Amino acid sequence: MAAWSERLAGVRGVLLDISGVLLDGGKDGGVPIPGSVEALARLKRSQLKVRFCTNESQVSRKDLVGLLRHMGFDISEGEVTSPAPAACLVLKERGLRPHLLVSDGVRSEFHRIDTSKPNCVVIADAGESFSYQNVNKAFQVLMELENPVLISLGKGRYYKQTSGLMLDVGAYMKALEYACGIEAQVVGKPAPEFFQSALREMGLEAHEAIMIGDDIVGDVGGAQSCGMRAVQVRTGKFRPSDEHHPEVKADGRDSPCLSYPTSHLGARGWAGSLQSRHVTTGIQQPAHRVLLTQRTGVPCPVCAGATKG
Amino acid sequence: MAAWSERLAGVRGVLLDISGVLLDGGKDGGVPIPGSVEALARLKRSQLKVRFCTNESQVSRKDLVGLLRHMGFDISEGEVTSPAPAACLVLKERGLRPHLLVSDGVRSEFHRIDTSKPNCVVIADAGESFSYQNVNKAFQVLMELENPVLISLGKGRYYKQTSGLMLDVGAYMKALEYACGIEAQVVGKPAPEFFQSALREMGLEAHEAIMIGDDIVGDVGGAQSCGMRAVQVRTGKFRPSDEHHPEVKADGRDSPCLSYPTSHLGARGWAGSLQSRHVTTGIQQPAHRVLLTQRTGVPCPVCAGATKG
Repeated sequence: MAAWSERLAGVRGVLLDISGVLLDGGKDGGVPIPGSVEALARLKRSQLKVRFCTNESQVSRKDLVGLLRHMGFDISEGEVTSPAPAACLVLKERGLRPHLLVSDGVRSEFHRIDTSKPNCVVIADAGESFSYQNVNKAFQVLMELENPVLISLGKGRYYKQTSGLMLDVGAYMKALEYACGIEAQVVGKPAPEFFQSALREMGLEAHEAIMIGDDIVGDVGGAQSCGMRAVQVRTGKFRPSDEHHPEVKADGRDSPCLSYPTSHLGARGWAGSLQSRHVTTGIQQPAHRVLLTQRTGVPCPVCAGATKG
Repeated sequence: MAAWSERLAGVRGVLLDISGVLLDGGKDGGVPIPGSVEALARLKRSQLKVRFCTNESQVSRKDLVGLLRHMGFDISEGEVTSPAPAACLVLKERGLRPHLLVSDGVRSEFHRIDTSKPNCVVIADAGESFSYQNVNKAFQVLMELENPVLISLGKGRYYKQTSGLMLDVGAYMKALEYACGIEAQVVGKPAPEFFQSALREMGLEAHEAIMIGDDIVGDVGGAQSCGMRAVQVRTGKFRPSDEHHPEVKADGRDSPCLSYPTSHLGARGWAGSLQSRHVTTGIQQPAHRVLLTQRTGVPCPVCAGATKG
């Protein structure tokens, strides 16, 4: 594999996942991942373009941004690409009237959509609303349709909350796919259209952007399929086995000296990698230095350019 | 395809599914499928051996038999092969201590099983107990295991109740498989071991028995994989699209003149096929006559020996 400087040449913008990268969700909205508020502030002062690319579908984009701003993040609604608004566009374009298997928190995103006489099902991360009764109702709606259409806002397997790992929408999408003998259409990561829409908003080509996320398939694999490069952080849902994923290899990971919370050096995930004077003074260094410069004196096998499997 | 007389030659015993064949589940245990009580009585007076092979896992075998007897069916506990007792044998043999994702109604089947410090998950048709919290707990248990073992009592997609189609255990099995990146071990139909255990109880070889069920994959495909022949009824979860299933072709279906409830002749599913003097007088006719003799004067394309696709 090429050296870091080569692998990250020409990067002009960063797409950031939110859950597991900026914060760990949980009670009262969760907690910021230590250092991430400051790191985002520095990143936004740099010359790199920044956009947020999330599969969050349990709350509306407005409420999500409100929560993040309350935590101190520099973020606005217009900077966020999220699946519910994207799904509304698809529904309108195709004349689809959804039965919504979603949480109450995201229902407002669909207030302009006709939900009478449903001819499809939209499934989102519904959390506690994934009762047997609600899931079964969606199943029955699908089974009554001649051509059942299931639209899934992302297909994540699970995410991390402060209380532990939590089943994500993808698990329930698979349940309905199997029960109905159909294949869902995914709006959100890892669908190429979703990444491309985020890139359009940034005015960048795929080869000019890098995705930073905690999901080896949804973030890393999805972005790479679109021609982007992608780094997996060791926070959020990251698990050591991701480093040996049979199909997806990240273009990099935050290095051992930067990982959180297991690092013996006490640094803090991807955020730690941005705590560098190179960012605070603007992008005067190659992107790989901005993203991966170590902030300790201890040699790091990643940012020193060691090859990775 | 060969004529019926050839296809059913040498049948000495019948394996009967319960839900969708004898009864449609629902409120207060559901209702018998019209004619099935009388048909079973006649079948048991014949020289054919009869056994019940069910994936019912929401109630214990004892309670299931109690319900059926209350409805008037001639059935005893010892005649029923069901997945919970079979799973207990597997758990004991392999020293597994399950976390149970099951309904309260079947929990008594596991009362002799050590459930402390779980090293596997057993999932059954839990119905309303498939809350997000319960499914997520099972997911978390699996994710904490070094070698996650998921044992599923059947893998049915759905079943029919009087109130409509209901999601079965298979949908939730798929959800956990996807979320954890594992493959479940199925105890129950269509696992070959399960059919073989029922055949052993009957003292029959596979080629001597015929399975009658409403599930084209679990009943028909499963039995055929073991070398049995299998008929799909047009009651329960049967859907017209089953007749064009891409992988499984039934050895026969109850004929149009016998189907329930759509038949213009008013006959009643597989039960109707047994309302024949051939059964009441013992098996003096070839099995295909016993199972498929029409009871009206109207020519029927199945029991008249027409070939099927």
